[in-house]
Amino acid sequence: MNDLAADPLAGSSIAQFGARLRRGEITSERATGLYLARIAALDPGLEAFTHVASEQALETARGVDRLLAGGVDLGPLMGVPVAVKDLYTVAGMPQSRVGSRLDVSDLVEPEGTFIRKLKRAGCVILGKTRMTEFAFGLVNLNQKPPRNPWDTKVHRMPGGSSSGSAVALAAGMCALAFGSDTGGSVRQPAALCGVCGFKATAGRWSLDGVFPLSHSFDSIGFFSRSAEEAAIAYAALSNEPPSSSKPIRGIKLGRPANHYFDDLTATVRQSVESALTVLEKAGVELVPIEIPEVRETNEIIVPIMAAELLAHLGRERVQAGQGVLDPIVRSRLQGAFALTAVDYIRQLHRANALRGIARKRMQWLDGWISPTTFSTAVAVDECATVETAIAWTHKSTRNTRPGNLFGQCGISIPVKPVGTDLPVGIQLMCAPGCEATLLSISQSIEELLPKPGRPHLM
Amino acid sequence: MNDLAADPLAGSSIAQFGARLRRGEITSERATGLYLARIAALDPGLEAFTHVASEQALETARGVDRLLAGGVDLGPLMGVPVAVKDLYTVAGMPQSRVGSRLDVSDLVEPEGTFIRKLKRAGCVILGKTRMTEFAFGLVNLNQKPPRNPWDTKVHRMPGGSSSGSAVALAAGMCALAFGSDTGGSVRQPAALCGVCGFKATAGRWSLDGVFPLSHSFDSIGFFSRSAEEAAIAYAALSNEPPSSSKPIRGIKLGRPANHYFDDLTATVRQSVESALTVLEKAGVELVPIEIPEVRETNEIIVPIMAAELLAHLGRERVQAGQGVLDPIVRSRLQGAFALTAVDYIRQLHRANALRGIARKRMQWLDGWISPTTFSTAVAVDECATVETAIAWTHKSTRNTRPGNLFGQCGISIPVKPVGTDLPVGIQLMCAPGCEATLLSISQSIEELLPKPGRPHLM
Repeated sequence: MNDLAADPLAGSSIAQFGARLRRGEITSERATGLYLARIAALDPGLEAFTHVASEQALETARGVDRLLAGGVDLGPLMGVPVAVKDLYTVAGMPQSRVGSRLDVSDLVEPEGTFIRKLKRAGCVILGKTRMTEFAFGLVNLNQKPPRNPWDTKVHRMPGGSSSGSAVALAAGMCALAFGSDTGGSVRQPAALCGVCGFKATAGRWSLDGVFPLSHSFDSIGFFSRSAEEAAIAYAALSNEPPSSSKPIRGIKLGRPANHYFDDLTATVRQSVESALTVLEKAGVELVPIEIPEVRETNEIIVPIMAAELLAHLGRERVQAGQGVLDPIVRSRLQGAFALTAVDYIRQLHRANALRGIARKRMQWLDGWISPTTFSTAVAVDECATVETAIAWTHKSTRNTRPGNLFGQCGISIPVKPVGTDLPVGIQLMCAPGCEATLLSISQSIEELLPKPGRPHLM
Repeated sequence: MNDLAADPLAGSSIAQFGARLRRGEITSERATGLYLARIAALDPGLEAFTHVASEQALETARGVDRLLAGGVDLGPLMGVPVAVKDLYTVAGMPQSRVGSRLDVSDLVEPEGTFIRKLKRAGCVILGKTRMTEFAFGLVNLNQKPPRNPWDTKVHRMPGGSSSGSAVALAAGMCALAFGSDTGGSVRQPAALCGVCGFKATAGRWSLDGVFPLSHSFDSIGFFSRSAEEAAIAYAALSNEPPSSSKPIRGIKLGRPANHYFDDLTATVRQSVESALTVLEKAGVELVPIEIPEVRETNEIIVPIMAAELLAHLGRERVQAGQGVLDPIVRSRLQGAFALTAVDYIRQLHRANALRGIARKRMQWLDGWISPTTFSTAVAVDECATVETAIAWTHKSTRNTRPGNLFGQCGISIPVKPVGTDLPVGIQLMCAPGCEATLLSISQSIEELLPKPGRPHLM
């Protein structure tokens, strides 16, 4: 299909797009039209979107163009076409289904602070993207996930739960894609889809209007083609000046000696080690650190997440919906019925204590660096049963979940894969609230590392 | 006992004491010595203190006097002798027992932010005061409470859980006394002991070093002889300028039409109505308001409190300590074993929602006014069984607990009792974070109302 519309930001960036927009070389309407054409061409095969708001997006884009013509500049994200995960309520779009066949319409809140922030920044929302049921896990069995655009032959996992947003961005169907990250749901699919996946500190942005999985660990995140664009978007949405790359020499990153480098596939190990070697040669100091408490992650985060989701949905609804729920979600929710308040409170207290311990371990370090996830994208067929899917979820989030437990902000950055064409990511984690540092170091790293490619679409 | 040392602040105030201190007419050492003498004379009968730190207090007072002589002025609380409830850790004093015979020494934290704040403000800590076990309820059966100083014949309830601090202040054994308020534990004993009892918004001050009952509802509070002194102390501990009384005309106070004025004793009803009439005549607008959700208070706050305490103490400790625990505490903790995480989370969410509803109901009002508690101090003998004690606790906190549920700040101010010598209090509640407004209106009210007396001690 040679007549595929070109990604209007390919080989360029949000910053350059903004400059062209302001010079009148492109309009938001034109960029929006091109993305809509790409969605029309690609999404039937990739299935990343639940809803494409063509008319609404074009009308918004025209409005933005007029505003700019009238001298109203809304900042760096003005006119930028974006996609959002179907757990954000967007006024004027169909009500969120949060990946479920269960009726949760009574729980869906009106459009919230964060989407209003996107709109006020002048973003053009192209549509809503697919997700696993309630964002609770990486895989569903009820339906095939969106297709990972890096393999046109085998249907491979895009990762989850923000699968649609990751695929939409990786396939160039939008310029930015928003998701949520409670255990790795932005960073993990970013790694598997070869894009940047940034998650803010939990609590950084208000979560009203975002369907909750776990109020203790939910955080907002987004996908971008580069760390530079992540920095631009974060700054624009925070009313802060954008961070730039900082001199690489003297940056101190903790390299976990336990857990994070265990049980990697050979390709992930080699790809990550090769990237780390580049960083070390450039002057990054990799400091070996022990983080023994990371082993508590699952026993704390999993029951809290399940209990908070069950409390939100309500026992009666979940009981009555057994036949409709995805088998993995059903199985994971089951354990939450019996959890006592005392155990829940004690796990929360332990999580609080661990946040303090992790903060101490981050002292004198600019961040922690590790592989984002243990392997490249597996074939969907390899996760076709409850057991294999849950096992893969646990393995695949073992490096991302601790960040949610420790309250960190983080990012996955694609590295050049060794011995594979499939993407590999490295994860950088920083202390709570240190997004500016995170994004600054990420840009320095990005500048050093060889640029990974883009998927070859059809 | 005619040689009882005079309360160095009687008929005066913290502000006047401060002025005299700075003019050299009194020293902190002298004031501390007088309070220690009063404690030595009165406390054997009243039993308000668990520990009197005579030497430490005198030494601190001398240090404060020297500092002042050296030109170091620590502000309005400098040199003021105070007492603190035995759930605050104070370095150099015996470890807190939090009213329990159970060994909880492993849970006692080092001295925390709030006590450090008192020390930095130049307060002289005279000692630690008695409380009910874990501050969980107003009454214990294991031991007689401190004696309410207003009745020298019958042993009457001082209220709780900050019973010792209330009695210490009411009997003039200190100039300020600190407590904690999770369901009324400052306001209720303040009403029964005829002093001011102020509670800050939960979260206003850090609670590290304060033994927790319920991290969802705990708040810091204190007893003072007047609202004016409460305002001085609050401002000094908040690094804010002290609020002064505001013109009474035009102040709008919600007067709850449901719940808060139900089932009062005749004396409380008459005393409060008579005070409200004075306020109305002076120009306060009393606005009838319905607060239907107040009826949810106990079903939300009681299980949360019990579960959080049980989680903090640990099931094993509580199980093993059945024989040592006070029967009321034991009985109230029992229900928490079976509470599910889902029910706990749902109650917390409901509490959050109610805070929002209450905030809306407070719009256009400066505060809510009500009786603090339904009756004057009953005889200790009337609460001698688990059933009568729990029933009295529920009745006695029915006007204070909603303030904790709604996240308000509040105060109990003594009013002139009608048809009784025992004290009666009115409660003023303001929106979260509105301490300055609360204390400003409290001073206006205080100026208008006839001054209630002081207990006649021996």
